[in-house]
Amino acid sequence: MAARNLIPFEAALMARADQVEARLRALLDDRPLSGEIARPRRLLAAMRHGVLNGGKRLRPFLVLESAALLAPDHDEAPALTVAAALECVHCYSLIHDDLPAMDDDDLRRGQPTVHKAFDEATAILAGDGLLTLAFDTLADEALGLPADRRASLVLALARAAGSGGMVGGQMLDIEAETSAPDEAGIIRLQAMKTGALIRFACEAGAVLTGASASDRERLAEFGSAIGLAFQLADDLLDLTADAGTMGKATGKDAAAGKATLVALHGEAWARRQLSGLVEQAHALLEPYGEQAALLKAAAHFVAIRSN
Amino acid sequence: MAARNLIPFEAALMARADQVEARLRALLDDRPLSGEIARPRRLLAAMRHGVLNGGKRLRPFLVLESAALLAPDHDEAPALTVAAALECVHCYSLIHDDLPAMDDDDLRRGQPTVHKAFDEATAILAGDGLLTLAFDTLADEALGLPADRRASLVLALARAAGSGGMVGGQMLDIEAETSAPDEAGIIRLQAMKTGALIRFACEAGAVLTGASASDRERLAEFGSAIGLAFQLADDLLDLTADAGTMGKATGKDAAAGKATLVALHGEAWARRQLSGLVEQAHALLEPYGEQAALLKAAAHFVAIRSN
Repeated sequence: MAARNLIPFEAALMARADQVEARLRALLDDRPLSGEIARPRRLLAAMRHGVLNGGKRLRPFLVLESAALLAPDHDEAPALTVAAALECVHCYSLIHDDLPAMDDDDLRRGQPTVHKAFDEATAILAGDGLLTLAFDTLADEALGLPADRRASLVLALARAAGSGGMVGGQMLDIEAETSAPDEAGIIRLQAMKTGALIRFACEAGAVLTGASASDRERLAEFGSAIGLAFQLADDLLDLTADAGTMGKATGKDAAAGKATLVALHGEAWARRQLSGLVEQAHALLEPYGEQAALLKAAAHFVAIRSN
Repeated sequence: MAARNLIPFEAALMARADQVEARLRALLDDRPLSGEIARPRRLLAAMRHGVLNGGKRLRPFLVLESAALLAPDHDEAPALTVAAALECVHCYSLIHDDLPAMDDDDLRRGQPTVHKAFDEATAILAGDGLLTLAFDTLADEALGLPADRRASLVLALARAAGSGGMVGGQMLDIEAETSAPDEAGIIRLQAMKTGALIRFACEAGAVLTGASASDRERLAEFGSAIGLAFQLADDLLDLTADAGTMGKATGKDAAAGKATLVALHGEAWARRQLSGLVEQAHALLEPYGEQAALLKAAAHFVAIRSN
């Protein structure tokens, strides 16, 4: 779409996506990580295929804008690198999620998934490599942050992404296909599967700028609220959008009889919930006044997005 | 085998394995990692299946004995946790390596592999969860080490395990099935696939005790030498041992026409090489005198092991 038709938020999101893309390209270029041992070319190509795919880079945006909110004058280089590392984790999860043994998806953003463009073994390894690269990047002195912040970022990301977070949520999601969870079960599943990484994105902005514990908690809560909104919007989209708009298969939840809050309570309820979550997210940012305008717009965007 | 028949090294290895097993059980128990969100039961069960399998725990042994060599009076709790975290990474790599899309192995130490005992999706997620848990564990303040050492451990492990290390080596190993590498290619493949993690094991003992850069480098070099020996011994075993002794399929390399240094240069050459590597490893430990006896024995054990 042409830049002149964009609302200011979408323009800001795209500008951030360009910055993040550049950082991701640098992380995935042909240079050895250390010493002289180059990374295998085919593996790097698969990692790039899974990452450099024109994603919206919403999670990186949240890292960058949370950091900018709490420390307006900070050097943005570390934030950009943290944002890129987080995106590596998000993309690894999509690569593994798309595998035949998992969701078995052939398309992602209208392009062949990594195991389709390469092969299954390469896709598994590309995911493993991206996850590991994220922690490499956060722990490295080259990030330009003190060691305690680097260790905090590694820990928070591992908690968000691991068996008590995203990976655990994926497990619950698979189990939900054969044994429908109740409402509390769905909420737990979604908080882990998609919520944890979005929460981390906002929290990371606080950690990397050395913000106070209360700012960190507030941003994390904001992230939780929009994480919930994100998932609700996703479930609504699966119900109402077509594959062309989404660049991936839709209607899969209903076809699989998958339990979602939308299936449980209906579309009207879900839209009311979404409004409530956006209000809650906005309220959390009140103390920051006008500075928080972009993050508030992000909450709105997450709730009303059409793909 | 009965304890009275063990040479002292094997008894020491088994004693260390018991300590590590206890630490691994604690990392994989039912308690939430943080907050109140429990890890999904099936996922934890699969992670335990892949880890608590009676492994020799050679890499943890190297962490513990390297640390003991450089700081005889150090508190062993952090070293044990680092050792357990490393074993999680080793076991994750085996779980993914055993998958149908990779080596397609049904047995590991005489037991069904994780995707056989559970299913493929669960095995993929269990591996992802273990890798993430390792970084969680190393970055956590609860490890009892200063933040700079925790960050250094995360970085060194990520470098050893990632696309420029173990994961990259697995990629090269897959490519070697269709396009035989030359000698330099085999050496690079093996240094990455198995060497990097063994090198890290020895290096980690130096990092966690805050040893000097020269001690760290010396231990890392020792690790590289025994990593090479380990792989040579493995290739020899694949040629000569039977499945019962190994607890897994053997003769696979030859059947797959896989290029190994043993296939290239023959058994006699390989045994001479092994002796040379053990000598080299021993020489690296000369400065530490009698204190290094166990690590020297480890080098010998790695070269002559029968399973």
